[in-house]
Amino acid sequence: MSHLIPIEWRDNTLYILNQLKLPEEMEFNPKTTVEEVFHAIRDMELRGAPLIGITAAYGLYIAAREIEASNHEEFMCLLREQADYLAQSRPTAVNLFWALERMLNKAEELKEASLTDIKDALLNEAILIHREDEAINKEIGENFLKILEDGMTVMTHCNAGSLATSKYGTATSPMYLAKEKGKNLKVYANETRPYLQGARLTAFELQHGGIDVTLICDNMAGSVMAQGKVDAIITGADRVAANGDTANKIGTLQLAIMAKHFNIPFYVAVPTPTIDLNTPDGNHIPIEERSFQEVTNWFGKKTAPEGIKVYNPAFDVTPHHLIRAIVTEKGIVYPPFEENLKKLL
Amino acid sequence: MSHLIPIEWRDNTLYILNQLKLPEEMEFNPKTTVEEVFHAIRDMELRGAPLIGITAAYGLYIAAREIEASNHEEFMCLLREQADYLAQSRPTAVNLFWALERMLNKAEELKEASLTDIKDALLNEAILIHREDEAINKEIGENFLKILEDGMTVMTHCNAGSLATSKYGTATSPMYLAKEKGKNLKVYANETRPYLQGARLTAFELQHGGIDVTLICDNMAGSVMAQGKVDAIITGADRVAANGDTANKIGTLQLAIMAKHFNIPFYVAVPTPTIDLNTPDGNHIPIEERSFQEVTNWFGKKTAPEGIKVYNPAFDVTPHHLIRAIVTEKGIVYPPFEENLKKLL
Repeated sequence: MSHLIPIEWRDNTLYILNQLKLPEEMEFNPKTTVEEVFHAIRDMELRGAPLIGITAAYGLYIAAREIEASNHEEFMCLLREQADYLAQSRPTAVNLFWALERMLNKAEELKEASLTDIKDALLNEAILIHREDEAINKEIGENFLKILEDGMTVMTHCNAGSLATSKYGTATSPMYLAKEKGKNLKVYANETRPYLQGARLTAFELQHGGIDVTLICDNMAGSVMAQGKVDAIITGADRVAANGDTANKIGTLQLAIMAKHFNIPFYVAVPTPTIDLNTPDGNHIPIEERSFQEVTNWFGKKTAPEGIKVYNPAFDVTPHHLIRAIVTEKGIVYPPFEENLKKLL
Repeated sequence: MSHLIPIEWRDNTLYILNQLKLPEEMEFNPKTTVEEVFHAIRDMELRGAPLIGITAAYGLYIAAREIEASNHEEFMCLLREQADYLAQSRPTAVNLFWALERMLNKAEELKEASLTDIKDALLNEAILIHREDEAINKEIGENFLKILEDGMTVMTHCNAGSLATSKYGTATSPMYLAKEKGKNLKVYANETRPYLQGARLTAFELQHGGIDVTLICDNMAGSVMAQGKVDAIITGADRVAANGDTANKIGTLQLAIMAKHFNIPFYVAVPTPTIDLNTPDGNHIPIEERSFQEVTNWFGKKTAPEGIKVYNPAFDVTPHHLIRAIVTEKGIVYPPFEENLKKLL
């Protein structure tokens, strides 16, 4: 099997898979300047919170290696300018700020070191962020394999896969890991309108990894479950609130409702930083509404009448009582979530 | 308000709205030969079981008026040939056979009449089939307005609208009729992947009729319901079994499951001929599986990886226990359906 690796540091160069060209072309582009990294993030050549963070970390190193400064203070000043610049590429991406902050802290610590040493340390920090993400996702998969059995069929939504992270993905991690261990999970991938991340990305990366994946439209999920073809549902999450309420790509909520109806376990796969104990519940998670054109147009082809009113929320909130377990790199969390999430963190 | 009329008999000519060009163009084409009618049905310029039946009836009259024969037997022989030809245009469409059979029976009855009189009688029969459909759909709307209140918001799926029938549609009938009576129903139209009948047809015809309609993707329905924005769900049906199990466009089942979860009434709108007492339950309704290309290609644009496995069922079955009522032209049927459907028919 081969993971689809969306980002690679090789020969002192950052290579990024241009996800905008998927599934038709697999184009890895070298990024040698901070401006190129900025545009790759802003123009969505890559997406997925963890992957954006990793990319930004490498981006800041690429900026740092060009900086000439006569002392640490001057270096930090110039480095912060570059971090501010990169932070503008996707101004709502929490992982982006987190990764940049971590890189800045690393440089800040090394007050006594030479510029060369600081730059080397920044590269190492970016690589560390990258490797940590890989390890976290692998652990999520390991934990899932404690509750999933060989030969099961799971359903997933949107893309919480390799293409959103560094290697294993979150929701896809047990699928890849099972394969590595000579076991098999079959997968239904929901296409995930309006942006079709399930069709364009998840189906693509699982197929590339040699995993038995079947693509369906979002409105076929209920039919597939009714036929007894689904043993578990696994999605990622954009944010998990303190009580376990989970915001994820639009359409997740209805999968969870149907899972309950058919008594199919519904699991959320997340790295622990996605769990936000400062958000008490789902009512406190703002839901982004996106352009009507995502629904009415596809690659320039108009598929709805001119001037039609559209509602296009990007996310929905799945209430905690519909979730069987939240699976993290630190362990599996069962209800009561309020209590058990606190214990975990 | 103005209904979108998909078929019209005017100046001795059949005019058909080419639904393949919607929503971008409104093109009414005259059909003057039986071959033109055949191609219009086969190539899906029109769709919807009732509309196909009406069109076939006019088509057979158009064929009949060209027939020259020396006696009734010879005329019937030639007429049957034409009916067989038209029946091949959509070989699974029950209404098509039903309408052709009714036309043949009418001609058969008139053994003593002149050819001119028989031809006139056939035109009148086609017009009668057309008007009956209009009346049936209007009655469905009238019955719905006994249970829906002014100002309510309803959700519908696929197209059980004017564009599938002659004028009011089935699921859309209460929406148009409310408008005619100075009341208002607001509507959420699910786009209905993969073929987007909800976006291209339902949103289009309701907007054309001046009805307040909002288009959403199929995976947004749960979110809209969770926000308390939906008072009732109304869909059409392809077949209702004796126990009330209902086959309809893929995605209907999950709406019914969510409706139950949120305690929103789920209604099925059908003309009584759609109720098939010979089908005991949903397990006896065959589900058509359609080409993978409907899912992987978006009007010529590839949106999924080459060679991906796809499951593309055209319909699903909603079990009767999820249905609040079945609304027909003859009245509203409540559970127990097994008993009450028999009483109705």
